[in-house]
Amino acid sequence: MTAYSELSGHFGRIAALSNAVGILQWDSDVMMPKGAAETRADSMALLHVLRHGLVTDPRIGDWLAGAEGDASLGTWEQANLREIRRVWTVETALPADLVEASSKAISACEMRWRQARADADFAGLLPYLTEVLNLQRQIGRAKGEKLGLSPYDALLNDYEPGGHSARIDALFDDLAAFLPGFTQEAMAVQAHRPALEPLEGPFATEAQRALGLRLMAALGYDFERGRLDISTHPFCGGADNDVRITTRYDEADFTKALMGVLHETGHALYEQGRPQGYLNQPVGAARGMSVHESQSLLMEMQACRSRQFLAYAAPLMREAFGGSGPAWEAEAMWRRYTRVEPGFIRVDADEVTYPAHVILRYRLEKALIAGEMTLADLPSAWNDGMKALLGVAVPDDRRGCLQDIHWSSGGWGYFPTYTLGAMTAAQIFDAACRAEPGILPGIGRGDFAPLVGWLRANIHGKGSLLSTDDLLTEATGRPLDAAVFKAHLRRRYLEEA
Amino acid sequence: MTAYSELSGHFGRIAALSNAVGILQWDSDVMMPKGAAETRADSMALLHVLRHGLVTDPRIGDWLAGAEGDASLGTWEQANLREIRRVWTVETALPADLVEASSKAISACEMRWRQARADADFAGLLPYLTEVLNLQRQIGRAKGEKLGLSPYDALLNDYEPGGHSARIDALFDDLAAFLPGFTQEAMAVQAHRPALEPLEGPFATEAQRALGLRLMAALGYDFERGRLDISTHPFCGGADNDVRITTRYDEADFTKALMGVLHETGHALYEQGRPQGYLNQPVGAARGMSVHESQSLLMEMQACRSRQFLAYAAPLMREAFGGSGPAWEAEAMWRRYTRVEPGFIRVDADEVTYPAHVILRYRLEKALIAGEMTLADLPSAWNDGMKALLGVAVPDDRRGCLQDIHWSSGGWGYFPTYTLGAMTAAQIFDAACRAEPGILPGIGRGDFAPLVGWLRANIHGKGSLLSTDDLLTEATGRPLDAAVFKAHLRRRYLEEA
Repeated sequence: MTAYSELSGHFGRIAALSNAVGILQWDSDVMMPKGAAETRADSMALLHVLRHGLVTDPRIGDWLAGAEGDASLGTWEQANLREIRRVWTVETALPADLVEASSKAISACEMRWRQARADADFAGLLPYLTEVLNLQRQIGRAKGEKLGLSPYDALLNDYEPGGHSARIDALFDDLAAFLPGFTQEAMAVQAHRPALEPLEGPFATEAQRALGLRLMAALGYDFERGRLDISTHPFCGGADNDVRITTRYDEADFTKALMGVLHETGHALYEQGRPQGYLNQPVGAARGMSVHESQSLLMEMQACRSRQFLAYAAPLMREAFGGSGPAWEAEAMWRRYTRVEPGFIRVDADEVTYPAHVILRYRLEKALIAGEMTLADLPSAWNDGMKALLGVAVPDDRRGCLQDIHWSSGGWGYFPTYTLGAMTAAQIFDAACRAEPGILPGIGRGDFAPLVGWLRANIHGKGSLLSTDDLLTEATGRPLDAAVFKAHLRRRYLEEA
Repeated sequence: MTAYSELSGHFGRIAALSNAVGILQWDSDVMMPKGAAETRADSMALLHVLRHGLVTDPRIGDWLAGAEGDASLGTWEQANLREIRRVWTVETALPADLVEASSKAISACEMRWRQARADADFAGLLPYLTEVLNLQRQIGRAKGEKLGLSPYDALLNDYEPGGHSARIDALFDDLAAFLPGFTQEAMAVQAHRPALEPLEGPFATEAQRALGLRLMAALGYDFERGRLDISTHPFCGGADNDVRITTRYDEADFTKALMGVLHETGHALYEQGRPQGYLNQPVGAARGMSVHESQSLLMEMQACRSRQFLAYAAPLMREAFGGSGPAWEAEAMWRRYTRVEPGFIRVDADEVTYPAHVILRYRLEKALIAGEMTLADLPSAWNDGMKALLGVAVPDDRRGCLQDIHWSSGGWGYFPTYTLGAMTAAQIFDAACRAEPGILPGIGRGDFAPLVGWLRANIHGKGSLLSTDDLLTEATGRPLDAAVFKAHLRRRYLEEA
């Protein structure tokens, strides 16, 4: 056995364990009866401990040292070593007592958050969230020391390897300067369009599911390696070769679940398209959360809210639900799916106003991790930011700084990937359509093969071979900037509207 | 930490891992897309290796030695030590290469069996089954040496702790002498009854499921700690506090799936009723497979094929499927559910002829493990046995010795537990009805609380506190014999018919 083959065998076992965790997590969210919660928590905690033991196995350092000098290794193997070293460095950066303290603080805070949100009671959450934040700052410092990064950037790197806040600051400042004025312009254009006609329901869950499955198939989802189910919070999860997505049906309105299915299908196509030969190795993993979100938003925002797609899909919707009247016309569906309306809630936001929600959260969490502001000041800072970026007056903390679970559940550094993903999606879709002129006409026929073929070759099949920057530069000719995203918004909401 | 608390903590972690395996196994059978099979097999194999590592942890021997002298331990803790020592002794009895060789031989043989059964091709299976048998004999010898048992009894002990073939021989010889003549008598009585009227379908799957759920609730199944789903082969599985059962619907005939649901509910009630304080300890486990099967057969055969239950359930069936006519009368349902008809296939057999299928398999597998016969002689020995015990001429090996997967999948020593379970069910139900006169009237109203209450106190809640013999003696006044089972058959098929 060479050092490399020891490493790849070891990380194959880690993947086998992670796949078990992925299916159990899916089960917890989709299938598990509620009386099993404690028993399941014990199983998950044990598997996490076992996984941590494998990833921090002391032999890994020796194997890495041996393999990194091995001149016989090819490009993918070299990249795999780089990724293994990265994963191992991060995982060994934290003392066990810090991991345990953080895990306990998060469990307590998540539970408290559900009540605090319901009651709009920020003061009740404050001590729990303070504990989580303090531990996140310690984690950021510990990882940052190993990685040579600031605490915030060290946290960010868990979701966005190679990401730097200095770079994100520049991208987001650009957008933040653009969006408030642009939103006003888009709404002024929208005011001259016909009002949305009501879509008369109810829309049976089974019919919604059947249409979702039909469109998933059109997008190229492989049902032999995945499933569609129901959960309270839609997600894409599961395991290698078993990529499961979920949605949540509302019989009064099918449009959100349907677009949600297409969004998760974008995530799933990425997972199903990762390189088969390295599926259970770190180099075969998805590149990071901004690229992942780019693949869901590319499908949802770029492809499926296009006039081309809706011309194909509107008749299928009409047929699925026996609809009739002007609300079911493709153009009316397009107006519905591109409606702009500033609001309080991130997950309900449209394509134009969504980035403002993210930029606000990013700026706040960065300041909190850096110690430049305190949690006690969060509600007022939040409300001021919403006023400045979106022009809305937040009525209470339930619809303000208590709306998302991320901070309570320790997901500090995650938020920026949503909008990085939206920008990346625009840049990739633009490059793909230029390279393959058949993509947009294909989407108009429900034929996603040209698009997915291009994505397989340029994004999905690359796994973590390249850095995010190199991946994007190879695929689109340049690293990420805001220009293509802004051009996309201008075209969709001003010129073509 | 005392030695005992070290042990119970350690076995709590083993339970957490086993629970993960249980849910993943359920998922494999119920949810998993077929393209995930290899990935899942990797995960399962790794979890089994990790579990084996925990159960054979070298510290266990020292902890046991320390704890077994601890005078402060109570009855349950003492019994837990006895069970831990038993599990640990069995698990450490086998060299790793034997476990691996057996696991590989079983995988190959199971796969070959599917084809061989379809083709009625025993010769094609023979080399694979020979390999499995040879390894089972080695396993039996290795375990037998540690346990002071014959190889067959050592294999039997994996399913039936404390079981001995000498004892089973006596019980089964008694039954084998009784059944052929009894079957003729029962069929003669049956010949004087009206023929079964057809039940006109189709019976929608959703209506079958709804009725199944309603009857599960009547039996006392706790839906907060379990689920009902669909699988090719019905089973009861899952995890502690998450006891999941499955069935398989046939829209042309609801009667099998419905009774199958009640059978699995019997298993599930046992699992849901195990002692909460020891749920994750060996002493909290189900006592063995014959007691487990007794709980499913008690519900299916003793309670739910009774006139009392069918008087309650027949109107619910009629209502669920909009049935009308004489076939839906309670008495007609009772005739349908107590029909005797010798056949080739074990899983289709009725209550009266089922034991003959089991006794045949038990005698054959015992002789094969002992080396008293060879696999080449299996088909003719099988067919001779079917003729002698059931009076039927087996037309081919598909409907003969190839029908069950058990031997191909390494389940040697399992078969006798089916009929031990049937006899145990009769003995327990008889004792319960004597102790609680409200049980049968309750069943007639769909109120299973008196029955389940008695079972909780006398069987379920005991876990593995007692040996099977002591459990049965405490609950029924004597160890297992065939008398109550035979009396039950005489009453149902001769006197009350």
